[in-house]
Amino acid sequence: MPEPELTDHAGLDSVAYIRIYLLGLKIFVPIAILAFAVLVPVNWTGNMVDTNRDLTYSDIDKLSISNVPSGSLRFLAHVIMAYIFTFWTCYVLYKEYEIVSIKRVRFIASEKRRPDQFTVLVRNIPPDTDESVSEHVEHFFCVNHPDHYLQHQAIYNANKLAKLVDELHSLRNWLTYYETCYERNPKTRPMTKTGKWGLYGKTVDAIDFHKEEIDRILKEETAEREKVMSDPKAIVPASFVSFRSRWGAAVCAQTQQSRNPVLWVTEWAPEPRDVYWDNLAIPYVQLAVNKLIIAVAMFFLTFFFMIPIAFVQSLASIEHIRKVFPFLKSVIEMDKLKSVIQGFLPGMVLKIFMAVLPLILMAMSKIEGYPSLSTLDRRTAGKYHFFILVNVFFGSIVTGSAFQQLHRFIDQSASEIPKTVGVAIPMKATFFITYIMVDGWSGIAVEVIRVVPLILFHLKNTFLVKTDKDREQATDPGCLTFHVTEPRAQLYFLLGLVYSAVTPLILPFIISYFAFSYTIYRHQIINVYDQKYETAAAFWPDVHRRIIVGLMISQVLLLGLLSTKDIGKSIPLILLILPILTFWFYQFCKGRFESVFVKFPLQEATIKDTLERATDPKLNLKAYLQDAYVHPVFKGVEMQEPPPIEEEDRNSIVSTKRTTNRTSQSNSRSNSSSFRPEIVYESPPIV
Amino acid sequence: MPEPELTDHAGLDSVAYIRIYLLGLKIFVPIAILAFAVLVPVNWTGNMVDTNRDLTYSDIDKLSISNVPSGSLRFLAHVIMAYIFTFWTCYVLYKEYEIVSIKRVRFIASEKRRPDQFTVLVRNIPPDTDESVSEHVEHFFCVNHPDHYLQHQAIYNANKLAKLVDELHSLRNWLTYYETCYERNPKTRPMTKTGKWGLYGKTVDAIDFHKEEIDRILKEETAEREKVMSDPKAIVPASFVSFRSRWGAAVCAQTQQSRNPVLWVTEWAPEPRDVYWDNLAIPYVQLAVNKLIIAVAMFFLTFFFMIPIAFVQSLASIEHIRKVFPFLKSVIEMDKLKSVIQGFLPGMVLKIFMAVLPLILMAMSKIEGYPSLSTLDRRTAGKYHFFILVNVFFGSIVTGSAFQQLHRFIDQSASEIPKTVGVAIPMKATFFITYIMVDGWSGIAVEVIRVVPLILFHLKNTFLVKTDKDREQATDPGCLTFHVTEPRAQLYFLLGLVYSAVTPLILPFIISYFAFSYTIYRHQIINVYDQKYETAAAFWPDVHRRIIVGLMISQVLLLGLLSTKDIGKSIPLILLILPILTFWFYQFCKGRFESVFVKFPLQEATIKDTLERATDPKLNLKAYLQDAYVHPVFKGVEMQEPPPIEEEDRNSIVSTKRTTNRTSQSNSRSNSSSFRPEIVYESPPIV
Repeated sequence: MPEPELTDHAGLDSVAYIRIYLLGLKIFVPIAILAFAVLVPVNWTGNMVDTNRDLTYSDIDKLSISNVPSGSLRFLAHVIMAYIFTFWTCYVLYKEYEIVSIKRVRFIASEKRRPDQFTVLVRNIPPDTDESVSEHVEHFFCVNHPDHYLQHQAIYNANKLAKLVDELHSLRNWLTYYETCYERNPKTRPMTKTGKWGLYGKTVDAIDFHKEEIDRILKEETAEREKVMSDPKAIVPASFVSFRSRWGAAVCAQTQQSRNPVLWVTEWAPEPRDVYWDNLAIPYVQLAVNKLIIAVAMFFLTFFFMIPIAFVQSLASIEHIRKVFPFLKSVIEMDKLKSVIQGFLPGMVLKIFMAVLPLILMAMSKIEGYPSLSTLDRRTAGKYHFFILVNVFFGSIVTGSAFQQLHRFIDQSASEIPKTVGVAIPMKATFFITYIMVDGWSGIAVEVIRVVPLILFHLKNTFLVKTDKDREQATDPGCLTFHVTEPRAQLYFLLGLVYSAVTPLILPFIISYFAFSYTIYRHQIINVYDQKYETAAAFWPDVHRRIIVGLMISQVLLLGLLSTKDIGKSIPLILLILPILTFWFYQFCKGRFESVFVKFPLQEATIKDTLERATDPKLNLKAYLQDAYVHPVFKGVEMQEPPPIEEEDRNSIVSTKRTTNRTSQSNSRSNSSSFRPEIVYESPPIV
Repeated sequence: MPEPELTDHAGLDSVAYIRIYLLGLKIFVPIAILAFAVLVPVNWTGNMVDTNRDLTYSDIDKLSISNVPSGSLRFLAHVIMAYIFTFWTCYVLYKEYEIVSIKRVRFIASEKRRPDQFTVLVRNIPPDTDESVSEHVEHFFCVNHPDHYLQHQAIYNANKLAKLVDELHSLRNWLTYYETCYERNPKTRPMTKTGKWGLYGKTVDAIDFHKEEIDRILKEETAEREKVMSDPKAIVPASFVSFRSRWGAAVCAQTQQSRNPVLWVTEWAPEPRDVYWDNLAIPYVQLAVNKLIIAVAMFFLTFFFMIPIAFVQSLASIEHIRKVFPFLKSVIEMDKLKSVIQGFLPGMVLKIFMAVLPLILMAMSKIEGYPSLSTLDRRTAGKYHFFILVNVFFGSIVTGSAFQQLHRFIDQSASEIPKTVGVAIPMKATFFITYIMVDGWSGIAVEVIRVVPLILFHLKNTFLVKTDKDREQATDPGCLTFHVTEPRAQLYFLLGLVYSAVTPLILPFIISYFAFSYTIYRHQIINVYDQKYETAAAFWPDVHRRIIVGLMISQVLLLGLLSTKDIGKSIPLILLILPILTFWFYQFCKGRFESVFVKFPLQEATIKDTLERATDPKLNLKAYLQDAYVHPVFKGVEMQEPPPIEEEDRNSIVSTKRTTNRTSQSNSRSNSSSFRPEIVYESPPIV
């Protein structure tokens, strides 16, 4: 499948995502060739390891910088290579940034009409004593954007309603289940208990009970729905404001509206399906406080996470279990179980923590108050990258917990830190090769055979699935988990850049990781995934920045390593120019490209507006945008229609996935068509 | 004179500027009272100095933190006071930021119609093969701002023309001089030589020669003027684009125009008199390279400036002069002159460097490519502040040249640096008290009696002034040299904050500095200065940020000092919270206020537009803006009219200044009226 077709099929987010791995190949294949042609012979003939043969050196070190004796002029080769590698990486990064930004511009230009092109999210609407929020918004924009304002959509605080809708949904599901049971076995009417989850309380007829419950909740829901729709206090001080043209929306999103810059804050509205509804109404002061709290929490999580883990691990020891649960004594002391508990449980605790970590980080990002799922993903990726950098990369090189490292680094001088870390780098090459094989390769293998979704599917199927609809929900094909996989890929960029001049032997492993990932994710995107939102590669500046950070870390560490090799001060000092140039390159690219990913140029908006006026002069934009931004619960009624399920064999895993993919796509399409009632382009709506 | 009247008289820039000193009083008077009430008794009764009486302690130390013995619980008082001082400083800073931002909004709202309100500076216009720059601009804005675009003003590369105009000006001046000579003494016609500055060449009649020369240059100038006006290559790829309304200009200035974010870059046009014409046409890549070069140059200037100074000082020694200029031997070896050279010359070199430094920094800012004088001033102030921070503050505390400090800091651990500096802080209190008296107080005294302008005036009067017009120019009243005085004031903020918890005795000196400065600058602004531009206090975010930097430095240094006092680890750690909170406060204020100083809210624009439509419906904006942004040389003819000089006694200095102030104000008014032909509000122009 060529790239333009792939973009049509899966969106630019997915295409840009697999380009991350392609970028890895573009950077590291030439670097590997050059390193093997130049650095490996230079290192190999260094004969340092042979003369100092002791236990600290392995055979890999014969190919690494450790094999070059101190004071040798051979290190000049490493310095020159570091320069070439830096320039090559920057060149590829620049080209790639350019390509992605052009793709983004083209993608946005070629996009069909979408509600978010005309809509701006306004937050922090100040309270007004005389007017309701709706009136206030109406008046403000009628005055300040007189020629362009079209309408606005109030946002309701529908948390309670959403809860009731969920409850109703669950009750209906149970009813279907019991009715199916009764159909299959018409002799006995199914019974249930009135308490929670049918566990306690009076035993009653299940079908009748659920019908009654549904009626009760339905009434409650209707009452709540009316209350929310009529109560002015249920409207939060935020709104989706729509404009007559893309130009008007672009202008409103990029300008400051009010004298007080924290009121009437405008930004591009996310796609309707991308909106994170809970975060739309946080005032500025609370947002600032939340960010401070999360920054402090992030610091403690990164540097002190081992403390609670160690505590839980101590609880999971045999002795502790014996003490707290004496009745389990006989079970625990069975030989097989004992060894499992001793060997497996402590590691399991850490493994569970690492699996849960992205969820914790996502929860933290939610507290920070970003209004869209895509922003939440991007911010969570940033946090996860920091965590991996500190705890996996530096944590593996400088042994000891992150906090001990931090303490040691604070007590060391600024010029000592790169030396300490740099010296340890060549010794850890074997460890990282193993890490790439165990974590990197197997991680992708697990992804391609989709072990985790398979296990989850079977668990759900056994314990939770009661109706066909449940099963259909359980077989969610999933989507790119950007906030988990991108930071992991960044670790391999970092390893590749750090080891390219030190132990080039690691490069083939990294290249095979990128090649493998590229193939697999391409396959998954074409055949499996179903993206939840489309941001037209808005995450690329983050990817670019993190690779630059990795590049600068690699330069500083090489500088630290070389300054311990007795080759005078001048050669390492030449390396000091590299991080300065790299930082300048970062600033240059930021100025050159970043606003393509943040702002929407008026030129583009004008072109699209003109084109639309020419092709579709009778468009009723007001009707088109009427219900674009409505909280999902107000579409509850439509959503309850059971989607068409194709009856296919579900035993084969792959075919199941393909089927569900197709089903859920059609499902999501039917959903999204309920979001955008006017999206059918064949019949132009009548004004 | 109350503040609103002062704003009308001198503009908001001046008012905000003297509020910097007022802010100093607001911060330090309560801090001083509290410090004298709490810390001085605590320190006084510490009795550390009495027991360790040796040479390293002075009497001032009895009132400082040095008098408290290590391990004493009295340090708790310093920690609590540090908290109170921080909260008080932040509170005052917040209030002041709020006041200044409200003043700015009101000032902008109450401003009369000005060309820059309707105008946007567009830079980096891409070349077009089919169209000239003017046509390209016209077409681009007609398409992308169809309802709002009014007209544009091309910018000519008039460097050569400006040179010719200057030459012509000088020749006319000489002609007047010789004619006056001839009038006074009609017997001998004045003679001159044809070479440069009349130093060599054939001797000719001065009046005839100058008349001929004027004719020649006049022809050349006319030719050049026509060439510039007709040659399309003389138009630089930048333009002043005007809009029909303030709303249209505000929108254009704040949005991205083109797909490529470094083309068609828009920003608010500076006032016509604030434009720095030479920098309008620098392409993005060159700008980025220039910034890198200047950043590196700034680093070397800050840390290595002593190397060329020391070299020049060695040249200025007796021995060197004797060697290079043997014929001066007898002169030098006179006893009086010898001592002057030995004692005075090396210090003089440093002094001259310090006096020239702001000019060097200004030249560096010009290379960075900012398009207005006000931005140049602000950026130069930032550079100067950094230089003072490194070379005066840290340079005085940690002895040795800046480079030696840098080297020492790099070799020290991150936790050692605050200790090293913190420990030295109390010992340097006496030095800084002297510094405040010598540099701070005398600096202001020099300012009030205007020693430098007086000397310059008399020098010019003796050597350069030939006609009345020359004398009038030599008595320029000057303006606030923001880029020099603000960074110096920042040093006293820093000293006050650092010493408030350590040696409160320094506070009265700082308070008197601020009080003195406030009075003097207020007087100068009312009676002397004549501002060159008006930015409505756009510099305030810089002032705010630098005080916050000072606050954070003071917290870290106190933390370093206390961690050497054997009071356990917990008490200093409590201080670690302060810089984090302060940084958060900085971010909070940035989000809350900064865009008031950067952007122009659409709400304001709409209000002003509506008001103007109501009061002046027949305004011919096109005619009003026609010549607003024309390079000054194209107004050369108007500028040559001699301004009316009031004949007053010039012997008394003060009256001279007042007179020239008034004259030059009237002069600048006549100038500015030539800049803005429609600014006369009494007679509404006819459409």
